[in-house]
Amino acid sequence: MIYWGLESSHLEFCCQRRLDDRMSDTYTYFSEEDTKAEDDMRGEDVRENSTGTARGSAKWLERMRRTFEEPTSSIAAQILASVSVIFVIVSMVILCASTLPDWKTAENNSVEEHRYTESLEHPSGIIEAVCIGWFTAECIVRFIVSKDKCEFVRRPLNIIDLLAITPYYVSVLMTVLTGENSQLQRAGVTLRVLRMMRIFWVIKLARHFLGLQTLGLTLKRCYREMVMLLVFICVAMAIFGALAQLLEHGLDLEMGNEDYASIPAACWWVIISMTTVGYGDMYPITMPGRVLGGLCVVSGIVLLALPITFIYHSFVQCYHELKFRSARCTRSLSAEFLN
Amino acid sequence: MIYWGLESSHLEFCCQRRLDDRMSDTYTYFSEEDTKAEDDMRGEDVRENSTGTARGSAKWLERMRRTFEEPTSSIAAQILASVSVIFVIVSMVILCASTLPDWKTAENNSVEEHRYTESLEHPSGIIEAVCIGWFTAECIVRFIVSKDKCEFVRRPLNIIDLLAITPYYVSVLMTVLTGENSQLQRAGVTLRVLRMMRIFWVIKLARHFLGLQTLGLTLKRCYREMVMLLVFICVAMAIFGALAQLLEHGLDLEMGNEDYASIPAACWWVIISMTTVGYGDMYPITMPGRVLGGLCVVSGIVLLALPITFIYHSFVQCYHELKFRSARCTRSLSAEFLN
Amino acid sequence: MIYWGLESSHLEFCCQRRLDDRMSDTYTYFSEEDTKAEDDMRGEDVRENSTGTARGSAKWLERMRRTFEEPTSSIAAQILASVSVIFVIVSMVILCASTLPDWKTAENNSVEEHRYTESLEHPSGIIEAVCIGWFTAECIVRFIVSKDKCEFVRRPLNIIDLLAITPYYVSVLMTVLTGENSQLQRAGVTLRVLRMMRIFWVIKLARHFLGLQTLGLTLKRCYREMVMLLVFICVAMAIFGALAQLLEHGLDLEMGNEDYASIPAACWWVIISMTTVGYGDMYPITMPGRVLGGLCVVSGIVLLALPITFIYHSFVQCYHELKFRSARCTRSLSAEFLN
Amino acid sequence: MIYWGLESSHLEFCCQRRLDDRMSDTYTYFSEEDTKAEDDMRGEDVRENSTGTARGSAKWLERMRRTFEEPTSSIAAQILASVSVIFVIVSMVILCASTLPDWKTAENNSVEEHRYTESLEHPSGIIEAVCIGWFTAECIVRFIVSKDKCEFVRRPLNIIDLLAITPYYVSVLMTVLTGENSQLQRAGVTLRVLRMMRIFWVIKLARHFLGLQTLGLTLKRCYREMVMLLVFICVAMAIFGALAQLLEHGLDLEMGNEDYASIPAACWWVIISMTTVGYGDMYPITMPGRVLGGLCVVSGIVLLALPITFIYHSFVQCYHELKFRSARCTRSLSAEFLN
Repeated sequence: MIYWGLESSHLEFCCQRRLDDRMSDTYTYFSEEDTKAEDDMRGEDVRENSTGTARGSAKWLERMRRTFEEPTSSIAAQILASVSVIFVIVSMVILCASTLPDWKTAENNSVEEHRYTESLEHPSGIIEAVCIGWFTAECIVRFIVSKDKCEFVRRPLNIIDLLAITPYYVSVLMTVLTGENSQLQRAGVTLRVLRMMRIFWVIKLARHFLGLQTLGLTLKRCYREMVMLLVFICVAMAIFGALAQLLEHGLDLEMGNEDYASIPAACWWVIISMTTVGYGDMYPITMPGRVLGGLCVVSGIVLLALPITFIYHSFVQCYHELKFRSARCTRSLSAEFLN
Repeated sequence: MIYWGLESSHLEFCCQRRLDDRMSDTYTYFSEEDTKAEDDMRGEDVRENSTGTARGSAKWLERMRRTFEEPTSSIAAQILASVSVIFVIVSMVILCASTLPDWKTAENNSVEEHRYTESLEHPSGIIEAVCIGWFTAECIVRFIVSKDKCEFVRRPLNIIDLLAITPYYVSVLMTVLTGENSQLQRAGVTLRVLRMMRIFWVIKLARHFLGLQTLGLTLKRCYREMVMLLVFICVAMAIFGALAQLLEHGLDLEMGNEDYASIPAACWWVIISMTTVGYGDMYPITMPGRVLGGLCVVSGIVLLALPITFIYHSFVQCYHELKFRSARCTRSLSAEFLN
Repeated sequence: MIYWGLESSHLEFCCQRRLDDRMSDTYTYFSEEDTKAEDDMRGEDVRENSTGTARGSAKWLERMRRTFEEPTSSIAAQILASVSVIFVIVSMVILCASTLPDWKTAENNSVEEHRYTESLEHPSGIIEAVCIGWFTAECIVRFIVSKDKCEFVRRPLNIIDLLAITPYYVSVLMTVLTGENSQLQRAGVTLRVLRMMRIFWVIKLARHFLGLQTLGLTLKRCYREMVMLLVFICVAMAIFGALAQLLEHGLDLEMGNEDYASIPAACWWVIISMTTVGYGDMYPITMPGRVLGGLCVVSGIVLLALPITFIYHSFVQCYHELKFRSARCTRSLSAEFLN
Repeated sequence: MIYWGLESSHLEFCCQRRLDDRMSDTYTYFSEEDTKAEDDMRGEDVRENSTGTARGSAKWLERMRRTFEEPTSSIAAQILASVSVIFVIVSMVILCASTLPDWKTAENNSVEEHRYTESLEHPSGIIEAVCIGWFTAECIVRFIVSKDKCEFVRRPLNIIDLLAITPYYVSVLMTVLTGENSQLQRAGVTLRVLRMMRIFWVIKLARHFLGLQTLGLTLKRCYREMVMLLVFICVAMAIFGALAQLLEHGLDLEMGNEDYASIPAACWWVIISMTTVGYGDMYPITMPGRVLGGLCVVSGIVLLALPITFIYHSFVQCYHELKFRSARCTRSLSAEFLN
């Protein structure tokens, strides 16, 4: 019984580790079935290996698939993952740098008369082309080696890949088709929008960072709490925004604070105050407005804290689940090496 | 015993689900009695059904009541709830849009000589009238079909309904009675106040969102902690406000920071600093004032966090209670359909 | 065993109530001894009641003491407490109002030639005098009826009372002694300081609000964590302040940001950034300064959250202790009424 | 069984104390072995004490080592620790004061023609020299009396000591070698950088404050969560920065908000908004930019709270571990005194 007491106290503090252990049991159970199924498949592989070279290529495809989909599965996969991460970071740095004033003037000087259409000849354009080429190749290979094409297309990370790659080709196509500068002026905004969609490449990092995967899973699971947070913010914005507009502007149209002239503007003040950001571009100046402001800020702190804690609890759980799952992957990998 | 250990560790992590289960048992107990009572009533209904059409209308009333009060009770109720939500959102959007400068000029142009009195002829005025008509109708039907009229009148959500509807009729009445523009100038502020009270319609959404109901229940239960939060803020505002006024303005009347000339102004600085909003409209510039500012901010973070955590704990409990209760409603509904 | 399982799950969620119960047992034990001792004393009272009126006055003193020290002990005590709270609030409001510009000009007009010396004749001066008189009387009566004079003098709340009352008499004395306006000009700052010390009356509210008592107890117990918080802030201020001064000002003395000219000024920026207030009176403009700023803000959020959680845990415990203790007081009171 | 129930409820609330107790058992076990080993060593000491004075000096070295490394081991050690802390604080105050404008003008007047090279003759220069002398001496003695020289050099606190001391000697050397003012102008930035590195002396305080040690241990253990926090912030900065630049500046190059001209500038806005600092040097002015701003702030609050909670849990655990360990040190010391 005393042992039991200690066990119970152990439970108290080592709950997280326990959770992992228990989940480990569950997962091991599933994974055993998985590996059994895989073993069967491989058994089949071995048996049918004599049937021809078709089998050999299937095995090679399977190995390729593993190399691309599971970054921890082999050394080649790790190198591939690292290269992908580096390409993402390089393209992000170029995207950021290309908006700097110094860069722009340098670019303008070097590619003075052939602005966008031939920007590929500029060093940064070449790096961009290489990056996009890599991503396209990676995406295509991943599609070819995937087991189930339908399921592959429906995965959110792959959809993001597609959305991030397409704009580049669209913009290249556009600049080729509309060669004159006169039309570029009109299309400039579209080009900039397409160019900026490149930023979603950064989501590709989610393949390689546990934290980002956890975040994605949490967002998927906490859909209900997210909506709650949104409803809270919208209701608070409506009420406080309308009251602030009334107190600061509506009571005295001539002398009132022009910042609060419309409810949408007042709503901007409400969201910035409730989240305790407080840029200082708008602030109440009348006594009732200030009392309302104080109420708004305090209720904002209370309101926002409530649904966020639900999200946090879900995040902790997701993190431990994914951490264990990735640990299992690595374990099963090393077990494979031993066999 | 080992099973028991697992059970105990289960308790640790699945406490929330457990809580729901336990509450479910308790509620099921009550709900069984409820449904038994209802069954009795219905039994009576069936037995007394032969007595005449009066019974039939009572049953119809009961069904109507359910349709209006319980949004999840039937498909008609869900449609009704959706329509209500849409009307609320539409009226909110119009209220917000009507304060935009572009809108105002457009309105002024279109209804140039018959400003407020005939604003019903303006498209937005018509939509407003439809919304208010719907809300009035909903409110009246709800009152007619309610079992206990007294209890209905005392429910907070119904009081809010009344307070949100009345101002519209008052303002219409006022514009009808005081037809001339000369008097409108004086009554303008009152009209704007009455108009802005329409914002409380947004609280009607609480009928349809679990999160808002949870919030309401939490506020009702955490009355004591709310008062504590208020007392903390007021005491801190009094002490820090007076000291800031003294250090920044009082020590040197000629050279002092004019922003801190009065204690109420200093209190505004205290509340904005303690909540870490920091608009930047006022900030200390002397060395002792800055030391006080640092102290004020740090103690504000500590002070505000303390009562909020009580509120948060209550919120989590309320949320699980209400979530379960609504799930029970839906379950009992589907059970009804099966029988 | 199933009962036990339920019990255990009960423990999980009703921990706070359990804590109260357990503490209740402990306290009841003590309180029983207390009341036994009191009963003995009263037994003695009754027995010795015949010895003379001295005993009667002792009993009266005891009742008086209870009336003043325990606000929940009787109806008279509650009235007394309410009056005290009202006096504190009234004097606070007057103190705040007296710094408003409108008030000052009004005062200056009404008491134009006899400014401070005869300010008692001004309505607000009379209210102040009444308040101070009440507080003095309360303090003296409390001292007279206290059992142990030494222990009374050493209690922090009584010391605060004394510190809050004394300045008024000192300032009155000063204005009487230095009658001329020429000298008043010099003594003005001292007078304003003394006047502002009146703000500490607000701490008298701690006698009547559970939340403030909890706060006081928490601060006393969390002395160690408070020091930790202070050390964290000071170390972070030193490091980030020096680095910010170097990066924003030191690297380029001519072109540098003049706001960061000295380390103390940079420390003000650090504390305002780390607590996420961000007034906007100072902000980095160079690239390395902004990177440092981002680091400073993120590490500030992490650093400040750490010791505050210890304080919060202590606060929750203190709150439940004091809540129980006050509930016990009220219970013992009602029990007394029954007997 | 009832006793056990109470025990279990006790576990619930006294978990922290329990944890300490359990850890205490574990540590006592280890420490017993430690002290046994030490006893053996001392037994050897005693036995071999007759072999000559070499042993005596070894014992003296051991005592010296304890005096320098364990501030709670003896009264001499405590005095030494206090002197170290005072020296650190004094040198910090001088460093801060030396950047104040008043100080600089005073210094310039007094050491007008022999500016940096002979600044040692200035009072603050003398105090600095004394401080640096003390730190050097302390560092050397600590190195001499250390058991394992290699392990000593690799300890992070000792590396920081070295990094904090070296710059002073480098700067003295530089001013001696480059005697002329003409060259000083060029070397001024380097000198200021070296001078500012003195701020890292403040980390020496970690030897004497439990809180700072806890922080260090937490940072070492939460390496993974720190990286997660960084990745979250970087990804969010990239996405929101690019979108903000597009919405506020990119959509309309002529009329756009010039503050958001480049993505790095927009990233500065993102980090300042996500952490709810909000200096107000940049803020969105267009409607889509404000919607994005609201999203950015809310997601920032959610994002930052997630990894910080992991760090906090680790901190609480580290704190209890270190608190117990230091308590054990003190206990073992007092036990030594008794024997």
